Amino acid sequence: MAAPEIPDIESALMPTLGGRYYTDPGIFVSEQEQIFESMWFCAARSSDLANPGAFKKVTVGRESVLIVRGRDGGLRAFLNICRHRGAMLCTEDSGQVRRNLQCPYHAWTYGLDGRLVAAPNMAALKDAAGRDIDRQEYGLVSVALREWLGYAWVCLADTPPSFGNEVIGAVTERLGDASVIDRYEIGSLEVGRRITYDVAANWKLIIENFMECYHCATIHPELTEVLPEFADGLAAQYFVGHGAAFGDGVDGFTVDGGAGFDALPGVTEAEDRKYYAITVRPQIFINLVPDHVIFHRMYPLSVDRTIVECDWLYSRDVTEFGRDVSHSVELFHRVNQQDFDACERTQPTMSSKAYRNGGVLVPSEHHIGEFHSWLLDKLTEGAR
Amino acid sequence: MAAPEIPDIESALMPTLGGRYYTDPGIFVSEQEQIFESMWFCAARSSDLANPGAFKKVTVGRESVLIVRGRDGGLRAFLNICRHRGAMLCTEDSGQVRRNLQCPYHAWTYGLDGRLVAAPNMAALKDAAGRDIDRQEYGLVSVALREWLGYAWVCLADTPPSFGNEVIGAVTERLGDASVIDRYEIGSLEVGRRITYDVAANWKLIIENFMECYHCATIHPELTEVLPEFADGLAAQYFVGHGAAFGDGVDGFTVDGGAGFDALPGVTEAEDRKYYAITVRPQIFINLVPDHVIFHRMYPLSVDRTIVECDWLYSRDVTEFGRDVSHSVELFHRVNQQDFDACERTQPTMSSKAYRNGGVLVPSEHHIGEFHSWLLDKLTEGAR
Amino acid sequence: MAAPEIPDIESALMPTLGGRYYTDPGIFVSEQEQIFESMWFCAARSSDLANPGAFKKVTVGRESVLIVRGRDGGLRAFLNICRHRGAMLCTEDSGQVRRNLQCPYHAWTYGLDGRLVAAPNMAALKDAAGRDIDRQEYGLVSVALREWLGYAWVCLADTPPSFGNEVIGAVTERLGDASVIDRYEIGSLEVGRRITYDVAANWKLIIENFMECYHCATIHPELTEVLPEFADGLAAQYFVGHGAAFGDGVDGFTVDGGAGFDALPGVTEAEDRKYYAITVRPQIFINLVPDHVIFHRMYPLSVDRTIVECDWLYSRDVTEFGRDVSHSVELFHRVNQQDFDACERTQPTMSSKAYRNGGVLVPSEHHIGEFHSWLLDKLTEGAR
Repeated sequence: MAAPEIPDIESALMPTLGGRYYTDPGIFVSEQEQIFESMWFCAARSSDLANPGAFKKVTVGRESVLIVRGRDGGLRAFLNICRHRGAMLCTEDSGQVRRNLQCPYHAWTYGLDGRLVAAPNMAALKDAAGRDIDRQEYGLVSVALREWLGYAWVCLADTPPSFGNEVIGAVTERLGDASVIDRYEIGSLEVGRRITYDVAANWKLIIENFMECYHCATIHPELTEVLPEFADGLAAQYFVGHGAAFGDGVDGFTVDGGAGFDALPGVTEAEDRKYYAITVRPQIFINLVPDHVIFHRMYPLSVDRTIVECDWLYSRDVTEFGRDVSHSVELFHRVNQQDFDACERTQPTMSSKAYRNGGVLVPSEHHIGEFHSWLLDKLTEGAR
Repeated sequence: MAAPEIPDIESALMPTLGGRYYTDPGIFVSEQEQIFESMWFCAARSSDLANPGAFKKVTVGRESVLIVRGRDGGLRAFLNICRHRGAMLCTEDSGQVRRNLQCPYHAWTYGLDGRLVAAPNMAALKDAAGRDIDRQEYGLVSVALREWLGYAWVCLADTPPSFGNEVIGAVTERLGDASVIDRYEIGSLEVGRRITYDVAANWKLIIENFMECYHCATIHPELTEVLPEFADGLAAQYFVGHGAAFGDGVDGFTVDGGAGFDALPGVTEAEDRKYYAITVRPQIFINLVPDHVIFHRMYPLSVDRTIVECDWLYSRDVTEFGRDVSHSVELFHRVNQQDFDACERTQPTMSSKAYRNGGVLVPSEHHIGEFHSWLLDKLTEGAR
Repeated sequence: MAAPEIPDIESALMPTLGGRYYTDPGIFVSEQEQIFESMWFCAARSSDLANPGAFKKVTVGRESVLIVRGRDGGLRAFLNICRHRGAMLCTEDSGQVRRNLQCPYHAWTYGLDGRLVAAPNMAALKDAAGRDIDRQEYGLVSVALREWLGYAWVCLADTPPSFGNEVIGAVTERLGDASVIDRYEIGSLEVGRRITYDVAANWKLIIENFMECYHCATIHPELTEVLPEFADGLAAQYFVGHGAAFGDGVDGFTVDGGAGFDALPGVTEAEDRKYYAITVRPQIFINLVPDHVIFHRMYPLSVDRTIVECDWLYSRDVTEFGRDVSHSVELFHRVNQQDFDACERTQPTMSSKAYRNGGVLVPSEHHIGEFHSWLLDKLTEGAR
């Protein structure tokens, strides 16, 4: 149960980003352009859109995106804006239509595949060349969509990056083996609980917090009880393939260490009694334990405000029979609250002259420096 | 009762303004400078200021303006600011003073004609040349004011444009005949009801909405019941002199088509059973029906917020005897709510990349393009 | 009891600052840099921090500053930010620790003298040169602190200006004699009442209001009853050493002129039955009357919002025996409300075109012009 040996890492303090990266609205706009509107963004749980005509409205970067279940059963994503005079098609967070998406302003009507199917006096409408207007060209603006792990990931870029490299690759790199994530069969799990947090902090503070465990001993008493090695401050994510082991007397990943549910069917001996944390940039955290999965999606709204939606996913056996998930939910819900409190305590001081050149990373936080380099690269790409 | 023949208009879709015209605070500032603070702005119903000493505080562009009934019975307008150290003279929306406007900070006192009439130790105050201070020069800053249709129109420009050309001309051009508006004797009507709407949308969206009827069939069931030709989407304002005819079974301009009141005395056969809509740029809508007039004033407060004050005006016969106006008020109140909902649904998406170059105008909306050209001209004047 | 003769002052109206000095956020930032973060800033009553480990969090310019009572009994000030990853050390407005200030995020721990005394795995932390980290270098960032009149004054400048010249000098210059202020023994008085005002006005409007008494006859009926010469509009602060005399039938500086308490022990015949007002730039007002002292501290938060904390200070005889201070508190509390109302009435019109070049100062306000010159000098220093 002891933590693995620390490799020969540099023990010197390393610098962080300067404070303006957390307070400058201009940098946040660059992040929206270069990151949230350019990369794959995990937008919705696919099962939230059960039947054809189900839709969900999601904010991705600065855009309102509609995710829609088509008549063919597939999910598609569109910008949530009518091509005529720009009204928002759907103002509700989610809902269900019968056959079409109709703009409530002038009744321009789009199929669930986005094509313009009707408009008042449509026959009389002509394009600049005098031809009938093209139903595709005047259809809804498409957004790239991929499903993985039971979630719909969308990308606003004209040419999306490789989903395999960027998303699946991030998980594989962390776990060291592409098959581990598959064994949890996350796509077939069900949402046992969802909690939404409104965090008054920059999204990067939330990522940095998740990436290190130097704070665990100080703010996470319940978590370190279950995962004793976290009390040593080692980041679970530092070591490829390493999962943090449950403590000796611990029976399950629950708020008091009491027994949870049966392990998920695919989970092997190696993963049993282990906790794995994975960061998928730019806005996803995946937490694997034997009997459930905790999945965080961040929606950065402004330089100092981020919505975090957290799903607790269980096997159908658990949810169908209405078994009590509150003991396992309570553990990570407390961790979330403790973490977000810390982030909210950090946001206001980012503007201090004492943080103009940032703070320092201790050795067990050094991998946050790699996140900072990645961020600076992304911002530089935009400036090129 | 059929709609008039559609003239030979271009059937191609036409472009609109790009989204930034509805979201950029800098453009809104230019509009305040070049439009609301430069043109005639309809500020208040004259009859709201009944007696000498009555005042009303109105926001015009970025200025607080006081409209005051003088001892000679005339209306005057002033900037609502003391010439001494700049305190706001009146902070209430309206009120009544006896003889003077006195600043509550240091008691500088102005006549209802704006002249400085008293100040503590005034005899000792000298101008830079050592002379007694000039009561006119240190009086309130005057704002041009004209009364027409029973409203006080003000202009913040140093050299106001011609009221006849800009305001009266706009009405005449629409109605095709200068005498039509006079026949409704709007100045002598009384306010039967006033409703104020706080609309989360740019003022131009409200104008564009009012200018076209392509949306009528979709969002105005009660209005199209009374005015069946509106269901065809033709803009009432497109055709010079054209009024929309009441439907065959319709007895009055009321929410259920039931009978209204007697036609106003001056209304002729030609105007009876007709609805006329007039846009007076930049912020007035006038709606004429045989037995009443609906008069909208917009007060743009920010790039995405506009106050609309709507008066329902009736003959003294109706208001004096306390006759029930709710059936006619209810019709256009619903139209207002339906329209402003549509505008509020459109505002948030103006920032989408899908609207960067705007949307499209269908043929029956083409005259909105003329409004856009006018706007661009106004903004260009400012940039010259 | 008559007011002193007016010296031969210029009687011409003088110009004020233009309106943008009260509305431009950029000018406010310059003021924070050149004034509030560069000059001595009166931050807290020393006695509010009674015992070792007591702390108070104060906003100075754009910084959160912690004032802490050390184990040696002395007060010290630090930026309220952890040197590790920038979390705010204390989020409560005030409190009490036992021995150390510990960051609640990762448990970096600082002595009450600011030195870093502990951190998880501290032994393993090295600086860039591979040495143990320096406890001073990684200690809290120190802020200069001086105590005077029972208050802690702090200065965020790297090289603070002379406290004697800037702070004590301002008081001496006004009173004409360095010993006068000492006779009130303000440091040994106790806080009988504290009232905090949240004022929707620029801090300079509050200073200008305090500096002149031209408004007294208009808005301060209770004050002019007690100090009749104020009804003549002469600024108490205009004449070096001059105190305003109590009216003939007035027994004390109370809301109804009734008797107050015994004069403070050091107060001489010359100061008895007198009121002295002193402005210590940039944010302090001191009001001396025979039996108590009223001490205002301003905390400018934004270009149009200022917190004012006002202490009523009495001798221990008064506070220890719980004597009723409400009659004397009520007088200046009303004055405060009357003044801040006037300032809030002035703020909104500062953006008017009528105030683009400012307003005018009457002769008895001319010394405000000196304040404006001082301000412009400060801002110019920053631009150099």
